[in-house]
Amino acid sequence: MEFWSVEVESGTPFKVRLEAEVLYIFQASLGEVKKKKDEFINLHITVDAEKHLVGTLHPKRLPQVVYNLAFEKDIQISHNWKNGSVHLFGFKTPRYRLKRGYPFHN
Amino acid sequence: MEFWSVEVESGTPFKVRLEAEVLYIFQASLGEVKKKKDEFINLHITVDAEKHLVGTLHPKRLPQVVYNLAFEKDIQISHNWKNGSVHLFGFKTPRYRLKRGYPFHN
Amino acid sequence: MEFWSVEVESGTPFKVRLEAEVLYIFQASLGEVKKKKDEFINLHITVDAEKHLVGTLHPKRLPQVVYNLAFEKDIQISHNWKNGSVHLFGFKTPRYRLKRGYPFHN
Amino acid sequence: MEFWSVEVESGTPFKVRLEAEVLYIFQASLGEVKKKKDEFINLHITVDAEKHLVGTLHPKRLPQVVYNLAFEKDIQISHNWKNGSVHLFGFKTPRYRLKRGYPFHN
Amino acid sequence: MEFWSVEVESGTPFKVRLEAEVLYIFQASLGEVKKKKDEFINLHITVDAEKHLVGTLHPKRLPQVVYNLAFEKDIQISHNWKNGSVHLFGFKTPRYRLKRGYPFHN
Repeated sequence: MEFWSVEVESGTPFKVRLEAEVLYIFQASLGEVKKKKDEFINLHITVDAEKHLVGTLHPKRLPQVVYNLAFEKDIQISHNWKNGSVHLFGFKTPRYRLKRGYPFHN
Repeated sequence: MEFWSVEVESGTPFKVRLEAEVLYIFQASLGEVKKKKDEFINLHITVDAEKHLVGTLHPKRLPQVVYNLAFEKDIQISHNWKNGSVHLFGFKTPRYRLKRGYPFHN
Repeated sequence: MEFWSVEVESGTPFKVRLEAEVLYIFQASLGEVKKKKDEFINLHITVDAEKHLVGTLHPKRLPQVVYNLAFEKDIQISHNWKNGSVHLFGFKTPRYRLKRGYPFHN
Repeated sequence: MEFWSVEVESGTPFKVRLEAEVLYIFQASLGEVKKKKDEFINLHITVDAEKHLVGTLHPKRLPQVVYNLAFEKDIQISHNWKNGSVHLFGFKTPRYRLKRGYPFHN
Repeated sequence: MEFWSVEVESGTPFKVRLEAEVLYIFQASLGEVKKKKDEFINLHITVDAEKHLVGTLHPKRLPQVVYNLAFEKDIQISHNWKNGSVHLFGFKTPRYRLKRGYPFHN
């Protein structure tokens, strides 16, 4: 089990390769907010070539969102914020350490 | 276990058919917010012909809501927002992979 | 496991009878907000003749609150909002399906 | 498993004695808000003579906070709000009913 | 299982040494807010010499953030707030009491 975080910079989608690992994402938050504009930032995660909207952040009112997500496949994280980075964090763990499937708690 | 998301467009309820699957819904968020009007958006899920209010969103103040829901039956998702779509995401998994009932963690 | 929701109307406490069932409550949200007054709405749940404050909602700033509650006894839900209903939702399940106590995940 | 709540009045710390019980606290919320002043309210829990800050509430913007806490020892709950009470709720359960430790879900 | 909290003062990163223990962090909240400036406060946790952004707080609008984190290695907690302390709380437990890995609920 290893703490994991990533800074997804403006205009640069970030790819996460998961070979024999599981990735848990717990939070996405805006980085340094230089320009507090009244704008909504959409966060997307692409899995199997499908792009999913996973959150709407706002520099003034909603600088972060809490998750409880698990991924076993490669993902790509992207956002449309022109004025900064979005930071995500969570845990990464080798898959063999998982005895039973998540998030089913069996 | 497969990542799942849907865009429920204005005026078009979305039906989810679940034959031998379980659907987990983790979040509902407003899509692109073009008109930031001061309006409340009601989100409904219909199960067994009963319509349940499952959230009140707001373009300015509350663009998303977090869930931890599980469904084993067909559902229909609808909302009353005239100015855009509501996006939901979660996971879908074949039912046979679940050894014990959710959300009871037994 | 059955989806459950209730509309608790203004001035009318709602009784939930639980004979051989467990009720999980996941959210309380304000219904249609007609008058956006600056008022706080207190939500109460009565169990065993004791009335418990379980949330403070606000039509403008806090239209919903998330829970993770379980009840095995009859409850009564009430609120003091004069201008609308409070909606709650969750799941109801026969007690015999629960092999171990909730919310202890044993 | 028994629903539990307490009203911690202004200036009066509340002691919870836990002999053979475990106390789960799920929420703290402000009671009736008479004076909507722009003030922050600090909530403290004292365990083993150590006082811990467990939340910052605000009458206008943040009338409640969600927890998932468990206590096996006596605690004292206090706050510094001069204009009202803070209400907490959760569950209390005899310790022998817990087969494995919380919050570790083992 | 022992309640744990820390006050991370302005300009003074706090080191947590975890020898045979696991640390759970449940919340970070701003301490006494003397100057309600319109500023964003970044909270960082450093593990294995890598600094991770784990939250963005705001004295007026977002005085606290909820977590569900577990650490088995030494960490360092720091923030960039010039006008006060950030308080974190959670639980600390000897590692031998954990029969199975967290947060995987196996």
